[in-house]
Amino acid sequence: MMMNTPLILTQMIERVEKYFPKKEVVSRTDGGIHTLTYAQIAERTRRLASSFEKLGIQEGDRIGTLAWNHHRHLEAYFAIPCYGAVLHTINIRLSPEHVAYIINHAEDRLLLLDADLIPLIEAISPQLKSVEGYIIMTDQAELPKTSLSPVYHYETLVAQGNPKQALRQDLDENAPAGMCYTSATTGNPKGVIYSHRGIVLHSMALGLVDTGAVSERDVAMPVVPMFHANAWGLPFVCLWFGTKQVLPGPYFTPKILAELIQSEQVTISAGVPTIWLGLLQELETGNYDTSSLRALLCGGAAAPKSLIKTFEQKYSIPFLHAYGMTETSPLVVIAKPKSYQDDLSDEELLDLKAKQGIVVPMIDIKVVGQNGEVKQDGKEMGELLIRGPWIASEYYRNEKTEEAFKDGWLHTGDVVTIDEEGYVKIVDRTKDLIKSGGEWISSVDLENALMAHEAIFEAAVIAVPHEKWQERPLACVVLKEGYVGKVTPEDILEFLTPQFAKWWLPDEVMFVKDIPKTSVGKFLKRALREQLKDQYLKK
Amino acid sequence: MMMNTPLILTQMIERVEKYFPKKEVVSRTDGGIHTLTYAQIAERTRRLASSFEKLGIQEGDRIGTLAWNHHRHLEAYFAIPCYGAVLHTINIRLSPEHVAYIINHAEDRLLLLDADLIPLIEAISPQLKSVEGYIIMTDQAELPKTSLSPVYHYETLVAQGNPKQALRQDLDENAPAGMCYTSATTGNPKGVIYSHRGIVLHSMALGLVDTGAVSERDVAMPVVPMFHANAWGLPFVCLWFGTKQVLPGPYFTPKILAELIQSEQVTISAGVPTIWLGLLQELETGNYDTSSLRALLCGGAAAPKSLIKTFEQKYSIPFLHAYGMTETSPLVVIAKPKSYQDDLSDEELLDLKAKQGIVVPMIDIKVVGQNGEVKQDGKEMGELLIRGPWIASEYYRNEKTEEAFKDGWLHTGDVVTIDEEGYVKIVDRTKDLIKSGGEWISSVDLENALMAHEAIFEAAVIAVPHEKWQERPLACVVLKEGYVGKVTPEDILEFLTPQFAKWWLPDEVMFVKDIPKTSVGKFLKRALREQLKDQYLKK
Repeated sequence: MMMNTPLILTQMIERVEKYFPKKEVVSRTDGGIHTLTYAQIAERTRRLASSFEKLGIQEGDRIGTLAWNHHRHLEAYFAIPCYGAVLHTINIRLSPEHVAYIINHAEDRLLLLDADLIPLIEAISPQLKSVEGYIIMTDQAELPKTSLSPVYHYETLVAQGNPKQALRQDLDENAPAGMCYTSATTGNPKGVIYSHRGIVLHSMALGLVDTGAVSERDVAMPVVPMFHANAWGLPFVCLWFGTKQVLPGPYFTPKILAELIQSEQVTISAGVPTIWLGLLQELETGNYDTSSLRALLCGGAAAPKSLIKTFEQKYSIPFLHAYGMTETSPLVVIAKPKSYQDDLSDEELLDLKAKQGIVVPMIDIKVVGQNGEVKQDGKEMGELLIRGPWIASEYYRNEKTEEAFKDGWLHTGDVVTIDEEGYVKIVDRTKDLIKSGGEWISSVDLENALMAHEAIFEAAVIAVPHEKWQERPLACVVLKEGYVGKVTPEDILEFLTPQFAKWWLPDEVMFVKDIPKTSVGKFLKRALREQLKDQYLKK
Repeated sequence: MMMNTPLILTQMIERVEKYFPKKEVVSRTDGGIHTLTYAQIAERTRRLASSFEKLGIQEGDRIGTLAWNHHRHLEAYFAIPCYGAVLHTINIRLSPEHVAYIINHAEDRLLLLDADLIPLIEAISPQLKSVEGYIIMTDQAELPKTSLSPVYHYETLVAQGNPKQALRQDLDENAPAGMCYTSATTGNPKGVIYSHRGIVLHSMALGLVDTGAVSERDVAMPVVPMFHANAWGLPFVCLWFGTKQVLPGPYFTPKILAELIQSEQVTISAGVPTIWLGLLQELETGNYDTSSLRALLCGGAAAPKSLIKTFEQKYSIPFLHAYGMTETSPLVVIAKPKSYQDDLSDEELLDLKAKQGIVVPMIDIKVVGQNGEVKQDGKEMGELLIRGPWIASEYYRNEKTEEAFKDGWLHTGDVVTIDEEGYVKIVDRTKDLIKSGGEWISSVDLENALMAHEAIFEAAVIAVPHEKWQERPLACVVLKEGYVGKVTPEDILEFLTPQFAKWWLPDEVMFVKDIPKTSVGKFLKRALREQLKDQYLKK
């Protein structure tokens, strides 16, 4: 038979220090730009790991990080799991209540945090029940004054650490390596635990030509935060393969990103659509050479077709649309055209790239509608179900597990279509879908159409109860300044009419001042529904 | 935690039939060239699997194949393991005694064989103890007359099979999927069992940009036989990723290979150096367009630098040197230059590509010399030790296991150097190494130098016992016709002198008529040593 060598992160560190010690990590921190070799990163990782021993950390203990994308966070990414503990990356943009909740829920014994985030933690430290120490990551030799206690200076721990600290070779591949909580629109955040095996397999998947194609030849800049689903796994695969990493640090601007792309010759970068919208505006100043870029990986939300078009056609920057979530490590589908699709027209290729893509090897998906699996016709809608070795099987100690994980599949709550070629397109959240007379209407499709109207700043479409049809769509529209009073609801409906079946058209278009949003900028439709239901039904 | 989805071959078939049904397999058989879509291949695979049920095959049973590279063999590659049985690929070039031995040792219950190989099996069938039936693979509607019984026509089984046969979803990933026996120079062949998990992970490794970079965009032609370490894993990864395959069938010539490369626009092909030497001669007729090729993958034996140079510089065909063995699935190291090596001179790059390369992700190697691990200096020699999830942990029911598998490492018996950058170079077999006065001398290095002499057709260097130095090198040289009587042993030694340290020089150069060889054309040095020891010592 074959050897039962476990799939664990320790092999990544050992590979890079043996075969790619000269390759570099460029890191932007509170103190400026640092360049470290992987030999240095690996040694510092070993030193940091040895300090956990001194601090009494045991196998399986959780260690939280509150940090931007920089080399110290990267070192923690390996020191913690290769010591046998669990890397708990904490979303610094959550509300203080939620941050306190997840630190307590995960029972973090240590927190590693950036100096600029000390005030956030000071404010909640009285509520923290499990934390026994705070390690401050900063370039400054002196720690800032703080009420946190005990505090340790990251660089002191590293300086005093053992450069030859042995990392764990004997871990079970199913042991937890990391964890991350999803941001929640209702209730408390839900925790996902990443196993060593899951991370190793996901990293392999990112290196496939047909998916992310990450290789030693790349220069990778994860803009997506290291506290969002492990920066989509890039820090792991890049270190493993000896890929140069550029970590853009705290409070970066589009200008900083554009400058890093040019100066470091970045070949692949990853982030949400908002980041790329910002970069686009910066590029329009015309001052940058971005010819090194071979891919902008985009996920987290659907990228508008116009954004993809501008990058590809105006700047010759290939745009790589993908989909995943915290529960899926995150890579599930990616929009790379197949070889025989090369002869599609530019417009057809754009349509294809505006979809989220086809499922990557090792992962299995199913699209389930009202009558079982939907037809692969790009039209019939159903909920996306996912399974595979880097898909969560549960929420950590959370009763919502039952709702989301059924019969061996993760039920994503995302409504999608899948076309003849297997390309998945996200059309809605199940909760936002409008169920009208036994048929489904996509709120997202209507919103996209509305937002293409020259007078409309933003638009949300929600379901409102209806006696005969159960639910009907209601469009809430924010007009651009200058159009208020000049455009009527009838104008808007007339604009939509040629684009949709008649029964898809909103029963009403309401002009509103703004649309409530979540902390990460997504429409808070639940709030909108609550707010408008009475008003609408009263009429 | 993460889902415990098993890594099994069934997911490969399901992926290709869902997402790449239109992609093609071009197959050359006894009857001509066939083109099948993966939809057809997948359906035929299900039909074939259903026939095993009718024939009473149970989970874990071994089914042998004796076949060339063609679509029917490819179907068997998936039908057998996805049914839960074990694909035992049998080397048709072994001696009849060895073929009988391994069929009995593996206890094959069925044999799938090409019609042209019927005589081979007829000759040994009285010795076969476990075989209950013979399935003949041929394009011909009528089976040839044969003494084998019972015989089944492959195409009849497929025609009568269930096109929707369910494949196993519930296999343990550590269950056996395949097996292969190594050819042995002494004793009986030794069996290696490949697990589903090992094959799946090895396939992922082949798809990495930094290794084989196999992708949906490739057209792959495995020339290496499907009975040699699974054609190096190509049939698995290609089907999984929807990569077009070109299977060159029985008794191909260099001309047939060159024509297939041109007509099918092959991008990657894989084979041993002998194949590429043959192709080179054919290319020199100047009649072929080989511009589609992005890689000739070469393993099985060290490729001469001159061969690499001619392909790369004369024909602009990238040459990809690698190393592995039956026990290692086989990929272990591969010679892709690192990004910062691009500015090496052509000559330095050639030297690098003439090495076997750096270890692929997931695999771990160690080079152990007389005093523990050797220095990474490209000079110190040691035995190559390997471990990883697609490395065998034992020989199937064979007492030689103890010798080769120790402390969790496969001891390859190959002597190598490893340089500063981690590139491994095979220098000898441990058994052929000359141990002189506590130092090691590489017989292979001396042979390569000798064979660069214009008068020398071939040369083997062996160790002969020596009172003071334990062993000393003896060079056995076959002169080219026309040079016999015109070149003296002293001329040869003089030619070697500037190239080696003095103590490396052979004590004697003997002219011989030929050098004994194994069935696959490797020097049989054991026989040479036996033959010459007395003769040499008598003097």
